[in-house]
Amino acid sequence: MDERETPVPMSKPRDYIRDGAAIYAESFATIRREADLAAFTAEEARVVVRMIHACGMVDLPGDVRFGGGFVSAARAALLAGRPVLCDSEMVAHGITRTRLPAGNMVICTLRSPETPGLATRIGNTRSAAALDLWGERMAGAVVAIGNAPTALFHLLELLDAGAPLPAAIIGIPVGFVGAAESKAALAADGRVPFVIVQGRRGGSAMAAAAVNALASEAE
Amino acid sequence: MDERETPVPMSKPRDYIRDGAAIYAESFATIRREADLAAFTAEEARVVVRMIHACGMVDLPGDVRFGGGFVSAARAALLAGRPVLCDSEMVAHGITRTRLPAGNMVICTLRSPETPGLATRIGNTRSAAALDLWGERMAGAVVAIGNAPTALFHLLELLDAGAPLPAAIIGIPVGFVGAAESKAALAADGRVPFVIVQGRRGGSAMAAAAVNALASEAE
Repeated sequence: MDERETPVPMSKPRDYIRDGAAIYAESFATIRREADLAAFTAEEARVVVRMIHACGMVDLPGDVRFGGGFVSAARAALLAGRPVLCDSEMVAHGITRTRLPAGNMVICTLRSPETPGLATRIGNTRSAAALDLWGERMAGAVVAIGNAPTALFHLLELLDAGAPLPAAIIGIPVGFVGAAESKAALAADGRVPFVIVQGRRGGSAMAAAAVNALASEAE
Repeated sequence: MDERETPVPMSKPRDYIRDGAAIYAESFATIRREADLAAFTAEEARVVVRMIHACGMVDLPGDVRFGGGFVSAARAALLAGRPVLCDSEMVAHGITRTRLPAGNMVICTLRSPETPGLATRIGNTRSAAALDLWGERMAGAVVAIGNAPTALFHLLELLDAGAPLPAAIIGIPVGFVGAAESKAALAADGRVPFVIVQGRRGGSAMAAAAVNALASEAE
């Protein structure tokens, strides 16, 4: 056999959908077929659908609570060019910059050089201390907490102490210590429009998905 | 009343645990109390505990499957200084660099300038196309797929085509189209040690948590 005719090892392409837009469309159709979104307005449902998409769980809606006209407040803030303030790098990196309507800044101060010293000084986690660096940027901003319960608790403490009010708070920290409690405290607070996921579930992907839903009407 | 005596608005500190180490300890104790880890070795259980910590769900173990001596293969690769190859920026940013034992590189090529053109050329998503840029860095690496089913399917196609074998694959993409199928395909494949979460659940936080568990024995 001529060497040039030696068969190259063939790799059969696998059978799966490779078109990103088709994957999104089929995913969202599945979610809307399986999830009970009856408790939400159409605008809220769009946010919840993206949150479900980020976690793969169609039973999420039972734990999602909106308050204070959250969607319109958050949309208006983004359209007005207000920043998105995030508690973790994962939230910040889950936000699709090209969807944001006004070149909005996405800010995470967790890795700022001042944060560790600040944490020691105030006797709290770095996630909480990082919020002390937000300052005036909190005014009218969209806050997205997807990781640390201590960040959400400390946000409420900053508001108690007279910090500028954000336009809307995505309060979706995850976990076993303080997550459920911090989210319940946000929902009970009433000063700022909010979305929460009651209980232990939550996370950076869900928080970023909520921002991405608010950022653009494009699915 | 003297003006200097006007009461300053007081903000009462809220009641929550502010000590990061105490929060971790209590979280892990709660997880070990509530989750059924009986199916795992002690080393596997450490990985699963961190995955549960990242998602807040103690029923996760029922869907977690390990294969091929995953933990020791992945640990050895990290100790040998092999890179961690990630399918998404969120996974890459969820990995705690200071836990990595050998200054390991953490690589995500999703936002490389070549990726969009490559996606068009191969007719796949950007998440999948990004893997074509990993090249020789795949040899002996730890691969962490936490987002895109297409990335996990394409990884298997690259192996089919003779790409260098990674040491271990964290296959935890999330969602409604291809997630369950791509993870089942990885588990059935057998060429590379793996961990998966069967079904739709998964995500970048879980994938990063698995890397963080493997990176250091410190809890």
